Amino acid sequence: MKVDGQEYRTIWMEGTTVFMIEQNLLPFEFKIHESSSYFETCFAITTMTVRGAGALGAAAGFAMAQAFMHAPVNGYWDFIVQAREEIEDTRPTARNLFYAVDRVFKAGKNSAENAVKEAQLIAEEDARDSRMIGKFGAELFGDETRVLTHCNAGWLAFVNYGTALSPIYYANKEGKKIFVYVDETRPRNQGAKLTAWELKNEKIEHVIIPDNAAAHFMSQKKVDMVIVGADRIASNGDVANKIGTLEKAIIAKEYDIPFYVAAPTSTFDLECKSGQNIKIENRSEEEVLFQTGMDANGNVSRIRVAAMGSPAENPAFDVTPAKYITGIITEKGIIKPCVQSIKKVCKS
Amino acid sequence: MKVDGQEYRTIWMEGTTVFMIEQNLLPFEFKIHESSSYFETCFAITTMTVRGAGALGAAAGFAMAQAFMHAPVNGYWDFIVQAREEIEDTRPTARNLFYAVDRVFKAGKNSAENAVKEAQLIAEEDARDSRMIGKFGAELFGDETRVLTHCNAGWLAFVNYGTALSPIYYANKEGKKIFVYVDETRPRNQGAKLTAWELKNEKIEHVIIPDNAAAHFMSQKKVDMVIVGADRIASNGDVANKIGTLEKAIIAKEYDIPFYVAAPTSTFDLECKSGQNIKIENRSEEEVLFQTGMDANGNVSRIRVAAMGSPAENPAFDVTPAKYITGIITEKGIIKPCVQSIKKVCKS
Repeated sequence: MKVDGQEYRTIWMEGTTVFMIEQNLLPFEFKIHESSSYFETCFAITTMTVRGAGALGAAAGFAMAQAFMHAPVNGYWDFIVQAREEIEDTRPTARNLFYAVDRVFKAGKNSAENAVKEAQLIAEEDARDSRMIGKFGAELFGDETRVLTHCNAGWLAFVNYGTALSPIYYANKEGKKIFVYVDETRPRNQGAKLTAWELKNEKIEHVIIPDNAAAHFMSQKKVDMVIVGADRIASNGDVANKIGTLEKAIIAKEYDIPFYVAAPTSTFDLECKSGQNIKIENRSEEEVLFQTGMDANGNVSRIRVAAMGSPAENPAFDVTPAKYITGIITEKGIIKPCVQSIKKVCKS
Repeated sequence: MKVDGQEYRTIWMEGTTVFMIEQNLLPFEFKIHESSSYFETCFAITTMTVRGAGALGAAAGFAMAQAFMHAPVNGYWDFIVQAREEIEDTRPTARNLFYAVDRVFKAGKNSAENAVKEAQLIAEEDARDSRMIGKFGAELFGDETRVLTHCNAGWLAFVNYGTALSPIYYANKEGKKIFVYVDETRPRNQGAKLTAWELKNEKIEHVIIPDNAAAHFMSQKKVDMVIVGADRIASNGDVANKIGTLEKAIIAKEYDIPFYVAAPTSTFDLECKSGQNIKIENRSEEEVLFQTGMDANGNVSRIRVAAMGSPAENPAFDVTPAKYITGIITEKGIIKPCVQSIKKVCKS
């Protein structure tokens, strides 16, 4: 998608270098981060320079390919197996990450060149799948639709287009009028910082709301539909996604508002029988106790927004049971969140 | 309650001066603000130097009394009537504010001295009622109870003790073990800043969580009960309270977790038939787009936490329908949120 008139992807690889939009600086500064080794790419994943399901998958695939390119002749496989473990340890909740690492690892068994080709293919597929999710999802919208979204499942979370926001972009290009309620998405404010930034660049009407306010707007019949992304979907349709997704799903059900999850089929984990088996990542309490933003001098600054001496808990994700989900928008069509539909779409 | 070993109330009046804890500086700095006229007290209400249902009532009563003390001989009643309107315009959602202004206004018809006495009585009653709410509410707790609370309905929101936190303080003194999940309560973070500060000073175990995380902890059976305050309660039991209260109530019901509202009977508005008649105050979008806290140099600083050029909506309150509320803890006992119980308790 475009930034200041120039076309960008969220992440790409040229030679042995991985390039990615430095997302910790957005929306205040636009900068491209370069990782010249799998280790640097892992660090970029851990520090959330790159984040979001699809972009993490591409990053992990590129990191695995970097490991193949850089492995020493002596101890070649030890290096690669060690690299694989390190990459997988960066974000244990992200399904796409494991999927990508596995594919590149297998492809690299023949040659490093094949590993690179496979990693590039994963990125291409991600962009193509996002586009198809947009196409299918846009069919859900009338001529005027008010959508609520949580976190950032836009193009910045994927290689291009995104998932939850892709139908909005698609519908917007078709001339439909879309209004978006953007949950700010504490503690890291990906909604207020990234989703709002994307929508503003695409000139789509939107408003940022405190996460707390979603039920209020739903109770006033101002929300027609909710669309969120997913980090991992169990085979029974339970969805792991950014903390707060479960709350939005419960309140949407209470107000009979359709609640859709948009995700490529690579997000499905058929070996994971239900959401209860998904390990929830706890992140640092500092993300809750402090907030990062731009100060009056235009510098990115960190301030304490909580009382001193009080601890915080910071679960990064929650699990939304399938019963709250109206449908899952995939690159192959919209399906019901149940084991039959999920198995069928994964095999097709 | 105590601050650094010294006993304080949130707000009090000596002579013609109103003293109050400057709540915008908390938790980073403890300072007493002085208002020497009704106009200054109104400004303190508008800028949230004083906030919370009971403290606002006391502040408004004191402001009305100040108007009586300062009214000029020429145009005495014009001055007072004008002052009353200005005080009532400061926070149109706060029921206690209207209640206090009305009482002091009527008392002042005889003499300014009576207005002062009435304003002092309102503050005394508030402290006494809060204490009784604590006593009744504490009976709900077992020996070990995990309570989730939203916003700050602690002693800082009243003259003393508080409402939602008063049962916790009472139970703590009885030797019961209470653990508190503190919703940070965006956009102004009264939970993370004020409730956490109160609980830490009283040495009650607690943890700050992003508002988004409440459903996650409830789904994991880590929350036994929710207690929140109220800014205004309609005669049918619908409750206007800090934005996000409605979300917590809906998810608590979904997980069969008791949801209590703690409020003195002065919060009931018998003339207001249902929550649909409650005017919701919209506050500045800057509260959502910016956040205030303490920077690395120990200065209170304001940073932008959202993309530039995106608007925000900031409803300060929402309305929780009575059907989600297990009971209302008043200074006269715990009642059901229905018109019969409410009328009865108000008359008793």
